[in-house]
Amino acid sequence: MPVSLKDLPKNRPSMTSSPSSVAVGIDIGGTDIKAGLVGCDQSILERRVIPTEASGGPNHVISRVVELSNDFKQIAVRRGARLAGVGIGAPGSIRAARGAVVSPPNLPGWTEVALVDPVSKAVGVPVTLDNDANAAVVGEFWCGAGRGTRDMAMLTLGTGIGGGVVLNGALWRGRHENAGELGHKIVIPEGRVCKCGQRGCLEAYASASTTAQRAAELVAGGRKSSLCEIVGRGDTLTSKHVCSAARAGDALAREVWEETCRLLAVACVNLQHTLNLERIILAGGMSAAGDDLLRPVREHFGRQMWADIGDRPEIVLAELGNDAGFVGAAYLALKHAGVAVGAATGGR
Amino acid sequence: MPVSLKDLPKNRPSMTSSPSSVAVGIDIGGTDIKAGLVGCDQSILERRVIPTEASGGPNHVISRVVELSNDFKQIAVRRGARLAGVGIGAPGSIRAARGAVVSPPNLPGWTEVALVDPVSKAVGVPVTLDNDANAAVVGEFWCGAGRGTRDMAMLTLGTGIGGGVVLNGALWRGRHENAGELGHKIVIPEGRVCKCGQRGCLEAYASASTTAQRAAELVAGGRKSSLCEIVGRGDTLTSKHVCSAARAGDALAREVWEETCRLLAVACVNLQHTLNLERIILAGGMSAAGDDLLRPVREHFGRQMWADIGDRPEIVLAELGNDAGFVGAAYLALKHAGVAVGAATGGR
Repeated sequence: MPVSLKDLPKNRPSMTSSPSSVAVGIDIGGTDIKAGLVGCDQSILERRVIPTEASGGPNHVISRVVELSNDFKQIAVRRGARLAGVGIGAPGSIRAARGAVVSPPNLPGWTEVALVDPVSKAVGVPVTLDNDANAAVVGEFWCGAGRGTRDMAMLTLGTGIGGGVVLNGALWRGRHENAGELGHKIVIPEGRVCKCGQRGCLEAYASASTTAQRAAELVAGGRKSSLCEIVGRGDTLTSKHVCSAARAGDALAREVWEETCRLLAVACVNLQHTLNLERIILAGGMSAAGDDLLRPVREHFGRQMWADIGDRPEIVLAELGNDAGFVGAAYLALKHAGVAVGAATGGR
Repeated sequence: MPVSLKDLPKNRPSMTSSPSSVAVGIDIGGTDIKAGLVGCDQSILERRVIPTEASGGPNHVISRVVELSNDFKQIAVRRGARLAGVGIGAPGSIRAARGAVVSPPNLPGWTEVALVDPVSKAVGVPVTLDNDANAAVVGEFWCGAGRGTRDMAMLTLGTGIGGGVVLNGALWRGRHENAGELGHKIVIPEGRVCKCGQRGCLEAYASASTTAQRAAELVAGGRKSSLCEIVGRGDTLTSKHVCSAARAGDALAREVWEETCRLLAVACVNLQHTLNLERIILAGGMSAAGDDLLRPVREHFGRQMWADIGDRPEIVLAELGNDAGFVGAAYLALKHAGVAVGAATGGR
């Protein structure tokens, strides 16, 4: 019997028999390429992380993707499984019609880079391409914290805040394929300037980096805090510092951390009034804070949202960590190939 | 050829030949019952408005609904059309399983009142029941400002702010059937107390009544304004007063009106980042302000939202006015009966 994703120890492939159909999932990041061979039964047969070597340019990165895919293809063959395709999640805007990625923020110098055609030609299977944030949402939906739901959203709290919405079991893309930009919902009109150019975005307050930045500004403004020591020795403040100091009772850190959690809760309230979801998942680097994040977000949600208990979504932490992207990319490849996938029914 | 809704003069039934299938649409309000006989081809064959006489109690109101429905049924028979059903839009929460409405705010003394069974028994056709706000959204979607879209939202600006979301051509109800509560999205965290108990809801700032209320508070606070005259002679300020005074250049009124439009634009920006819609409709009493509402909302949207033009929804005014509710209720009845409806494909 295949081992399910949740039971599998990290970074160790399962040694069990294979599912009939499998797909390669590839998650291209600025630093690493995370990849895996994923079965239609939600099992991960093989998992690998290699450096992106983005400085080598697009063609070099494509050759690394091809090499990984061909390795996985051989593994699939050895196991007697049918390789349904390769799914790629990439940062930046996707031009689906041209199978290309446009100006990914973490891959400097990439303007428009076609990925689908060269990989498909070199590997000999269909290739699907999607945004890395979409892939991660679909991954959690299929195999992680979203399992068993039909209607959910995810907030990915990293340098920025990514997001995604699954409705009726499928990623909701919207009219211009630009839905789920949940980090750019305005939570404080005319508030802090966001990197996107808007003012008052959730991302301008409650991402890992802007949480740290708000604390750093208060420290620079002369407020007393245990964080002054970290800044004093020349280290850059992180959201982890803020969270730890808040837990230890530092007043400045608590104020900043509570504000982050309060505004994340506002975003959850607004999602709920708009879409009435089953579940909202907090993911990304900052979700490693665990209960220190989850508890106050839930509390602020409870204080701000209507009291009617039946109406509330579960607010939970993501489960797949760095696997979410390649698992979701593989899922989209399986769906694209018309393979019946285990448990969840979504994606498109 | 049937006359389409948009070409039809108000309050005059068309005298043309009938569509094959028709439904009665009933919109129960606190003051009036608005009703019509609507064809599957989007034509209104007959339209009627009678006082609700809510003080007579639930049974009296039900008898009025039955009487109206039977009148319309006879008209359908005379015209040789098949009456597919009766659709009712009612205020308050709907208990779909029991065909009942619960504690409608505009019908004092109604606790849980079953509507589906008594009307269905007395009229002899299937009866569908939905929230009046949902019915209005579906009405505009099918025959009004939403025609031709698949993905849209509507903000109904009245005493409160109602709303609704149509995705993939169907009303999005969500997990607990409570989606589309767009008036209770929080736009100013910890802001003004809303009637719903939350703080900082859109409805607490930008409904017709809260717009007037914010102006009244500034007048009461001693600010100079042409509105002081209206208050001075004992009249109650309305959003219409505020809009007119703003147009005439009154500084206080402009400030209040701009704030309303700015926060409506924030709500539109947030809807767009979440769902990436084709169109957002401004409806309800305050939409009678026309361009005085539409222009500044669009301007504030343009100033606050990403500049990428291809990503923007059309922001438009509703077209059906008071007809939207009964048209949408009839649409839901037609869909329920499995009748193929003209043009739009949505609802469920």
